[in-house]
Amino acid sequence: MKKLTERIKKDGKVYPGDILKVDSFLNHQIDVRLMDEIGEEFHRLFADREIDKILTVESSGIAIASSVSRCFGYVPVVYAKKTVAANMSKDTYACKERSYTRNLDYTIQVAREFLSKGERILILDDFLANGEAMKALINICDQAEAIVAGCGVVVCKTYQPGEKLIKGLGYDLKVLARVKAMSDDGQIEFEEED
Amino acid sequence: MKKLTERIKKDGKVYPGDILKVDSFLNHQIDVRLMDEIGEEFHRLFADREIDKILTVESSGIAIASSVSRCFGYVPVVYAKKTVAANMSKDTYACKERSYTRNLDYTIQVAREFLSKGERILILDDFLANGEAMKALINICDQAEAIVAGCGVVVCKTYQPGEKLIKGLGYDLKVLARVKAMSDDGQIEFEEED
Repeated sequence: MKKLTERIKKDGKVYPGDILKVDSFLNHQIDVRLMDEIGEEFHRLFADREIDKILTVESSGIAIASSVSRCFGYVPVVYAKKTVAANMSKDTYACKERSYTRNLDYTIQVAREFLSKGERILILDDFLANGEAMKALINICDQAEAIVAGCGVVVCKTYQPGEKLIKGLGYDLKVLARVKAMSDDGQIEFEEED
Repeated sequence: MKKLTERIKKDGKVYPGDILKVDSFLNHQIDVRLMDEIGEEFHRLFADREIDKILTVESSGIAIASSVSRCFGYVPVVYAKKTVAANMSKDTYACKERSYTRNLDYTIQVAREFLSKGERILILDDFLANGEAMKALINICDQAEAIVAGCGVVVCKTYQPGEKLIKGLGYDLKVLARVKAMSDDGQIEFEEED
């Protein structure tokens, strides 16, 4: 998605430790117009999948999922809740997730009443690196016997294992901005888009 | 806001300990169409305030703030980040907040670069009870020397101190659904709307 890669080149910041910060428009301050354009792009990519519901994870997936929902005729958005403590409840589907960025294990949870057997789910997230969050969201859909109809990610570092991992499991993953390299002087290189 | 109070009556659930759960449409599963209607209502209430930016707090404020932003010509949304640990940074405005629901102290933080002196801020949140989160967001605006141009809340329990507290401090607070009583059998009563 050209507008997105241009924006990342313009406003994304590269920090030591292979960190790409896009918090001026995606995950701290939000450019809602860009979110709506992202929504249209995901709709273009997944329009024929008969999506019943969108599943994401707090917090940075929520604005994206809201904009995508609107493009899919206001399908419900469900966001998994993230806790450091593993306070599982019988009323939730839960899955552990390793955050390499924060060096922490999270438990993400979705109330059972909000995911049903046979529902066609579009899973969305802002970033894909190691694929841990995406795998946990897929696992939660599996527990609910819901159908993962597609996986969408805004930014992916293609030199990290996440993209290959999720595609290798057979999921239809679409990525809007595929970062193939970042240099210490702040240059960001992208691969071809889907 | 009639549509909202009707929805809360229909789908809100009252639990022991004065807990009102609206997680089937507001803060776990999200009805984005309702969020857009909430956006239009906040725009009607604050249209003349020359809003430059919307400030909310993760996670439940984000979908609301996104819908409101669109109605205000896509002003940027900033969401404060919430951490249990007080890992303050020199680069953020930070404020402690007591969560009575969870019996925990949080630190909420906003990167300094995303709030500027003189900016006119609309503060939004999903719930107002004791007013702790709203006070913390106001405090962060004060630190940035930004102007609190209005405060909007989707649901407020009027028998708790938050509404009087924030209005008593002189802020223009608008509430879309004012709960005046909840009974053990699940009945929810509302006051007149703004």
